Amino acid sequence: MMAKQELKIKESPLFWPAKLRGSTLKVLDETMIPSKMTYVDVKNTADAVKVIRQMRTRAFGQFLVVLNTFLLELKGNKSLSDKALLAKLKRTEQSLNNSRPTFPFAEVTSIIIRWADEAYSKQQDLRKVVSRNVEGYLNGIRHRRLDRVNRVAALLQDGDSVLTHCNVSGELAMAAHIAQSQNRDVHFFATETRPYMQGAKLTAWELKRMGAKVTLIADNAIGSVMNDELVNKVIVGSDRSCANGDFANKIGTYQIAVLAKEFEIPFYVLTQPSDKIKTGDDIPIEIRNANELLTYYKKKIVTGVVNGFYPGFDVIPNELITETIAINVN
Amino acid sequence: MMAKQELKIKESPLFWPAKLRGSTLKVLDETMIPSKMTYVDVKNTADAVKVIRQMRTRAFGQFLVVLNTFLLELKGNKSLSDKALLAKLKRTEQSLNNSRPTFPFAEVTSIIIRWADEAYSKQQDLRKVVSRNVEGYLNGIRHRRLDRVNRVAALLQDGDSVLTHCNVSGELAMAAHIAQSQNRDVHFFATETRPYMQGAKLTAWELKRMGAKVTLIADNAIGSVMNDELVNKVIVGSDRSCANGDFANKIGTYQIAVLAKEFEIPFYVLTQPSDKIKTGDDIPIEIRNANELLTYYKKKIVTGVVNGFYPGFDVIPNELITETIAINVN
Repeated sequence: MMAKQELKIKESPLFWPAKLRGSTLKVLDETMIPSKMTYVDVKNTADAVKVIRQMRTRAFGQFLVVLNTFLLELKGNKSLSDKALLAKLKRTEQSLNNSRPTFPFAEVTSIIIRWADEAYSKQQDLRKVVSRNVEGYLNGIRHRRLDRVNRVAALLQDGDSVLTHCNVSGELAMAAHIAQSQNRDVHFFATETRPYMQGAKLTAWELKRMGAKVTLIADNAIGSVMNDELVNKVIVGSDRSCANGDFANKIGTYQIAVLAKEFEIPFYVLTQPSDKIKTGDDIPIEIRNANELLTYYKKKIVTGVVNGFYPGFDVIPNELITETIAINVN
Repeated sequence: MMAKQELKIKESPLFWPAKLRGSTLKVLDETMIPSKMTYVDVKNTADAVKVIRQMRTRAFGQFLVVLNTFLLELKGNKSLSDKALLAKLKRTEQSLNNSRPTFPFAEVTSIIIRWADEAYSKQQDLRKVVSRNVEGYLNGIRHRRLDRVNRVAALLQDGDSVLTHCNVSGELAMAAHIAQSQNRDVHFFATETRPYMQGAKLTAWELKRMGAKVTLIADNAIGSVMNDELVNKVIVGSDRSCANGDFANKIGTYQIAVLAKEFEIPFYVLTQPSDKIKTGDDIPIEIRNANELLTYYKKKIVTGVVNGFYPGFDVIPNELITETIAINVN
């Protein structure tokens, strides 16, 4: 059943933006889109931390990088004893957990370390067991995400005009493609998503590439298009979820949720549910370097003496969510 | 009394961004700030329409360009009979009224044409009478704006953190300077104000230049800083006002007003009251060329096939306004 669905769904490059080729992980460099599609080579933990910190990959791409980095370390350290390999995997765990604050790296890495600890204590073949588990895990996620694409597609009704923010890692664009192939006319507004412009660079490009109708607007025009009744649904992704349903997503999502409530527009979020943290108050919010705000395409926007404040994410309380479209990653 | 105040207030270049020097109007090129302060020469109506359309000047600068363009035409057409000059002034009126849709050009130009018609019908010296009236009018506006700077300064209390959007043409920065010189510690958040970046390029630069504490944020971070209780006042300008108190301002102002209401943060607006149009529904909203959204510093942001939608302004209904700080321009 799943395999059949998979065959039918046209895939967006952002759906699975990192692929293992031998001992190299090819990571789609999202900072180069839409100019070109290039891939950064990741061969070890240090490379992985670098692509994450530089935001060459983001959102679901980070998840793929984390899992595949363990596969790389398992493959690459053939001369190490299982004991030394286990210690190495734990160093990988620490490095990845410390790469960026808001994405729940620890929730993913802890699963792999649990497998490794278990295999080691049971004196199993550490490399084989953990690799097989990680591969199986990735495969499961893939099928569950494809399943969610179908659920998102079912949300998209003929005549809908959907506002989205930042980027939903392929799933929204693939759902749009399904809706279109089933002759439902759906329009999308993609916000620019300053400062990183994921909406302009990734989402608009991706939706268009998948054959959807998309119009780019400035983040400032959200209230205006809602007030003009040009939007009837909001669909966004999430970077982190809490036990109570609160979630964190790219900065700006919170104010969209408040505006959607004001205009009684249904607000949908694609989440990876987790009960590791209770409420949104407990989510650490990454404050990124203000230079990323003060420069654009390496050109200085403002004079050097001005301060910038760049929280990378904000938290959306559960009461602003109409429906959560969940995937279970654990 | 007024003259005394004028001596005391330190002036920002954006307060009076167009100055007449002989037969040339020197218009501050706001598109070049903060890189450099350069002036564009305007010698006639065609030049004036060009600087307005290209947004080299904006907001109050447009008002100065309009009035001074009539002075230029009055000075420059010495060989014309009064009848021919009156016809020429009416062509200037039409050209300026058609330059951009949202700013109330007609409300300003109609005053001057009324003076010209009156002088002509009374067989007065058209050039002399109209020039004198325009100059007197400009002088009156200058004093009333300086008076408003003092009223805005009185709003700024010790410990305030004020969010502003787009640019308030010098007045807010000058008020900040007054507050500072009276030892009141006031902090400002300037939004970037995409797509044109007036907040990043003009407001942050101007506030800093006047000695104020200013932090730049992305337009997406407004809800976040309000939710974190980092802002206790919002102060914005306006491009057009209605009889019922609704006003139009730079795109994004509307959603700030909605968010301010949600967080019970007082929302102040500097307006030029007018009863020429009844409500915000009657304000024509300029839809600017989407290329201004799809490119940045002449670099293409998204691939060519994506559509953009760029309303230049939005309308804020009177019920979202805490207090209107008015100047009478008529």
